Amino acid sequence: MTTTRLEPADIPALAAGCAVLGTGGGGHTYEAELMTLQALDAYGPVEVVPLAALPADGILLPLGHIGAPTVSLEKLDSGEEAPAIRARVEQELGRPVVAAMASEIGGANGVLPVAYAARLGVPLVDADAMGRAFPEVQMVSMHVAGRHPDLIVMCDVTGNVVTVRARSGEWAERVSRQVTVAFGGTSLMADYVMTAGRFRGAVIEGSVSYALAIGRAMLAAPGNAVAALAEAVGAVRLIEGKVVDVERRTTGGFVRGSAAIEGTGADAGRLLRLEIQNENLAAFEDGEVRACVPDLITVVDAQAGSAVATELLRYGQRVVVLAFACDPLWRTPRGLEVAGPRAFGYGFDYIPLEEAAGVRSA
Amino acid sequence: MTTTRLEPADIPALAAGCAVLGTGGGGHTYEAELMTLQALDAYGPVEVVPLAALPADGILLPLGHIGAPTVSLEKLDSGEEAPAIRARVEQELGRPVVAAMASEIGGANGVLPVAYAARLGVPLVDADAMGRAFPEVQMVSMHVAGRHPDLIVMCDVTGNVVTVRARSGEWAERVSRQVTVAFGGTSLMADYVMTAGRFRGAVIEGSVSYALAIGRAMLAAPGNAVAALAEAVGAVRLIEGKVVDVERRTTGGFVRGSAAIEGTGADAGRLLRLEIQNENLAAFEDGEVRACVPDLITVVDAQAGSAVATELLRYGQRVVVLAFACDPLWRTPRGLEVAGPRAFGYGFDYIPLEEAAGVRSA
Repeated sequence: MTTTRLEPADIPALAAGCAVLGTGGGGHTYEAELMTLQALDAYGPVEVVPLAALPADGILLPLGHIGAPTVSLEKLDSGEEAPAIRARVEQELGRPVVAAMASEIGGANGVLPVAYAARLGVPLVDADAMGRAFPEVQMVSMHVAGRHPDLIVMCDVTGNVVTVRARSGEWAERVSRQVTVAFGGTSLMADYVMTAGRFRGAVIEGSVSYALAIGRAMLAAPGNAVAALAEAVGAVRLIEGKVVDVERRTTGGFVRGSAAIEGTGADAGRLLRLEIQNENLAAFEDGEVRACVPDLITVVDAQAGSAVATELLRYGQRVVVLAFACDPLWRTPRGLEVAGPRAFGYGFDYIPLEEAAGVRSA
Repeated sequence: MTTTRLEPADIPALAAGCAVLGTGGGGHTYEAELMTLQALDAYGPVEVVPLAALPADGILLPLGHIGAPTVSLEKLDSGEEAPAIRARVEQELGRPVVAAMASEIGGANGVLPVAYAARLGVPLVDADAMGRAFPEVQMVSMHVAGRHPDLIVMCDVTGNVVTVRARSGEWAERVSRQVTVAFGGTSLMADYVMTAGRFRGAVIEGSVSYALAIGRAMLAAPGNAVAALAEAVGAVRLIEGKVVDVERRTTGGFVRGSAAIEGTGADAGRLLRLEIQNENLAAFEDGEVRACVPDLITVVDAQAGSAVATELLRYGQRVVVLAFACDPLWRTPRGLEVAGPRAFGYGFDYIPLEEAAGVRSA
């Protein structure tokens, strides 16, 4: 079993990789990077361990923000949320928290768990529950694996603490989303809190290492990050162009909207439209689906060579839109039921990226 | 200390009195009456005890529905909510629930705690936290007395259980309201859960006895219930007339609206307007306040001789509108801050009923 240690020097690569896996969501990584560097400075480096290394009866705390990234961009954590959540969990379950995990490896939500682990003095598990970012509470591997959301604990920046014992993953989403709205649009959340043993077979392993590897490949190729990234994840290039329209609303605890990218250079004359619910959900061209959830669609700033969060997409930005395959878990019938196009209200079935992106070149 | 026992025969009088004290809110009492009769039949009579009779370190559970009465009218309890709340409270606080209390003595919320006490096998305290009904969580005597909302537990009809540890009474309202919205517009709730000792000096005593006395006076005077009621509570008659307009919206976990009553008989030519947020908040005539919160404004059906819930006010109904003084607690500066006109967004200060109702006759 590999145990690695996250030091301040690792954080830029982790953040770059998480931004890619965020598919536009999970929160902008810049502030998360600063907060994590500060936490590592204050509390020391964080051990990254495989799930199998944890005692089966200790509590594993999956942590992440829920809400609208447009809000969390401006409304930062106090830093007291993770300790408050741990205290509540330990009091309710009567056993210690032995490790933290990113609920989603995408965006700020992939980076900040390093800060939480440092603050809590526990290791970080090399896994997450999505292999990317998704907007809703039940869109996690634990739900796909049939685990029940026994306990959810939420804490806001002012110290309000709410626990939810929901009848199902869908109820967990409904209730937690409204609590988030009451909290002002963002909250730290520990979802599907269980013993480490019950997470076995119900997470996506190696997520932290994967994000680090992606980020390192990008940072090792300054001026050529897009190509390095495409190679690292095996991405299809959907379009290179200019953002010509962005529509964005912060509503009901989400960011919803769309963006249009007009092709430039070899892609001149083409127009790609992205639809957004925190994350990039689907890409359309000429009325055809070019890529859709649960596959990953990432917008990369062509000049900066870094992935762009949906809340920071802006008119005139030069971008390359990449798409790559999701974790195989999401392509199972149960995975598609939980996070396929129909789970987001679309009227079409999932089209694997290999097929959808091929439509045009055929 | 007086201990009385509530038997099925007492429930119609209790319901009639609670409907009056509900000032239109707290939920229609008819279904509550049926549910309570059924619970007494299944679990036996309920002892009504003064707060002082409880062990100081036992938990007192104040119970009531939060939400829009238009919803609770149609979406009934499963009956499992109170046991689920008790179980959670006892697990979190590690001590037994020794009694139940009505959070508000008004409407269905004054009656149903008898059913909960029967079901839980505990006595009911002869007190409540309002002496009437109010729409918001922090509009309780515990908040006026400076107690902190340490623990709130909510349970919906499907069995979702949420606990809220709020930073303040105002945060408790914000968060619980959104949870109620997620629950579909109504929830059973134990608010300001504390040991019995901490409730001392922070409740309105004798509420159950008072509601019973009002109801008995009304039921003892068939055909003359309005006069009997007015005498029992010392009410001013604001108008006798016909409902000529009702506007009602179920929004954000509340019922909001207004009603207009056109005078008949001796009151012909007059028009009274009531403003509603679950309860009747204020009565206006010719641009003047005739009565306002925290004083009580109750609409009585002139033909049925019973108080009318705001969700059942209807065009053409013949009514008498009565107003009477609130518990002195609400007329203190702190009481008015919590539940005076400005707490409901009005731009005017509280005008005591004695003064407001006198304006016109002067």
